[in-house]
Amino acid sequence: MPFDISPSPRVRRSPFFDATVADGVRSFTPYNHMLLPTGYGDPEAEYWRLINGVAMWDVSAQRQVQIAGPDAALLAQALVPRLIERQPVGMGWYVPICDHNGVVLNDPIILKLADDRFWLSIADSDMLFWSRAVAAERGFDVEVTEPDVSPMAVQGPKADDVIASLFGDEIRAMKHFRFTESTLDGIPVMLARSGWSKQGGFEIYLMDGSRGTELWNIVKEAGQPWDIGPGNPNQHERIESGLLSWGGDTDERTNPFEVRMGRYVDLDCPDDTVGIKALRRIKEQGPTRHQLGVFLDIDDRLGYFEAKGKVFKDHENAGHLTATTWSPRLERNIGVMLVSRDVQPGDPVYLTLPDGRQCVGEAAKLPFI
Amino acid sequence: MPFDISPSPRVRRSPFFDATVADGVRSFTPYNHMLLPTGYGDPEAEYWRLINGVAMWDVSAQRQVQIAGPDAALLAQALVPRLIERQPVGMGWYVPICDHNGVVLNDPIILKLADDRFWLSIADSDMLFWSRAVAAERGFDVEVTEPDVSPMAVQGPKADDVIASLFGDEIRAMKHFRFTESTLDGIPVMLARSGWSKQGGFEIYLMDGSRGTELWNIVKEAGQPWDIGPGNPNQHERIESGLLSWGGDTDERTNPFEVRMGRYVDLDCPDDTVGIKALRRIKEQGPTRHQLGVFLDIDDRLGYFEAKGKVFKDHENAGHLTATTWSPRLERNIGVMLVSRDVQPGDPVYLTLPDGRQCVGEAAKLPFI
Repeated sequence: MPFDISPSPRVRRSPFFDATVADGVRSFTPYNHMLLPTGYGDPEAEYWRLINGVAMWDVSAQRQVQIAGPDAALLAQALVPRLIERQPVGMGWYVPICDHNGVVLNDPIILKLADDRFWLSIADSDMLFWSRAVAAERGFDVEVTEPDVSPMAVQGPKADDVIASLFGDEIRAMKHFRFTESTLDGIPVMLARSGWSKQGGFEIYLMDGSRGTELWNIVKEAGQPWDIGPGNPNQHERIESGLLSWGGDTDERTNPFEVRMGRYVDLDCPDDTVGIKALRRIKEQGPTRHQLGVFLDIDDRLGYFEAKGKVFKDHENAGHLTATTWSPRLERNIGVMLVSRDVQPGDPVYLTLPDGRQCVGEAAKLPFI
Repeated sequence: MPFDISPSPRVRRSPFFDATVADGVRSFTPYNHMLLPTGYGDPEAEYWRLINGVAMWDVSAQRQVQIAGPDAALLAQALVPRLIERQPVGMGWYVPICDHNGVVLNDPIILKLADDRFWLSIADSDMLFWSRAVAAERGFDVEVTEPDVSPMAVQGPKADDVIASLFGDEIRAMKHFRFTESTLDGIPVMLARSGWSKQGGFEIYLMDGSRGTELWNIVKEAGQPWDIGPGNPNQHERIESGLLSWGGDTDERTNPFEVRMGRYVDLDCPDDTVGIKALRRIKEQGPTRHQLGVFLDIDDRLGYFEAKGKVFKDHENAGHLTATTWSPRLERNIGVMLVSRDVQPGDPVYLTLPDGRQCVGEAAKLPFI
């Protein structure tokens, strides 16, 4: 949309804002009350850089909710339907956060920094007030804050080379979702093997917001031998890879079992874990919907969008199309659906796109690639 | 900022979006995950239209949190530190919503639609999850939802004429903050005498999101004899009038007594009202800060901004400058401060503006006009 974004104290700039502007950022989306860069003017190049090379992304908008204090583990367990006592310090877990009815409110990574300190590295919904409300209503002795922590991502098959050149070759052995505290030229960071792509890579959590430009330029400089360039959470790749987009792929009644997050739920969690009773009931009855891919039979290359379309099977309304994109690797139009379990991979479906056009499609397994 | 806003399922368009585009909207700010128009290209004309004539604003982003069901009054009382049982049906109250420490999380209008149904007409922070968390943790039998309700505002000294031409002359007698259900050409609306200006006027709460363009055009057509034109919540006027901007004028520790909301707190609320014990303690000890105006002695006309500046008195740090603007009516640069109670109206202060410039100023009472 070619409209200006008016400044507001509630639309914060990232610590990397100036650096991304210097690198030619063209568009943003508001995300957790912060501007998240969404493109640098050449989507094709940005996609292939992620697939074949290495890209650096400003993902500061992935804010951290810090839970710290004597009852931190109690609150973490109350909020997250996985057995937090089993989570090792120095490890992140992908988890759903559900409401008391088992509806997914967010799908963060929970990082266990210590037995009494956690970060929720969140998607775009307000987990700060949610966590504070549960903590205060239960009388927990805990502080829930948004610390000065701002991730940037280095993603792609050559990300290991860039990160190893900065942090040493030992990071090549780091396992997925592990993280460790470190510094770069004296800048305090947390280095994690994670990121919202399936192309491999790291996230560098900047822990001093005044040094964003400095960190950005250090990574940019280090990445030159591998032709690093700017990018952003890539919607084409995430659909190909079957990564969930909370608030796009989910709706007001989505539970974790519908969106392939059942493996991140432990039904043995304590009874006072928010939503656990509802999740047990849903699991027992069996969810009525599931998330599938879809190949779309339409001539032009679909742009990326996350508006809702309609899905029909045998002339019956079967659910929603939640995102589409042209897949550069598959050279086909693909999408993601949240549909009745009557629809199975391979089934023919009929779709109404958000722009009103109709087409046929074929349900598919996720991920596509 | 001349950057594009990327589409996202979490940045919703208002039901009036198409109509505002047709009327030449130039800029937006995200507000409650919706695009709020912030200008139509002629700020001067938009200001004077509000002061001397009548303006129509898309304020759909002022979302409603509906609290309905058998325990609705219990939840409303838990969330709001005013005695809800005394609120008449058909009346809105301006209230703070506080956390358990008495910090202001939002400053909505609470509308009592029935003894078991309320709307919180909210500022830009997430009251939906907050309210649901408190409700569920207390086991209240209540539904907390975001209904299909989208306000538009008709503001200015000629607003009564426009609204009377649409709804009949009896609305001229409607008292401030009263509201009533009605229809316009079959479009269901709630008509309230309210709005974020001190120039008088109404808010029309559209209750069918599919009919936004229709309602916009009805009001636009009706307003022609009074030269109605588009506008938006006007920051120059709101500073002159001393209206609070939550998240701009407030910070992470602002309590209601600091920002002139003490009169909207009833310390006799039940003990289980969220934050009431903290509010009693703060009231007893006396708040340490207060909100004042300030005249700024600087040559050029300051643009509107809400970034934080610094305030000094007698070379001591005394607090923050939270907003500034050129006042067209006072023909002076004015601002709003959150400062130590040592600073009193008439005191000379020294300020550092967000752009780094320094100037002298004089503390002033709010409102300015």
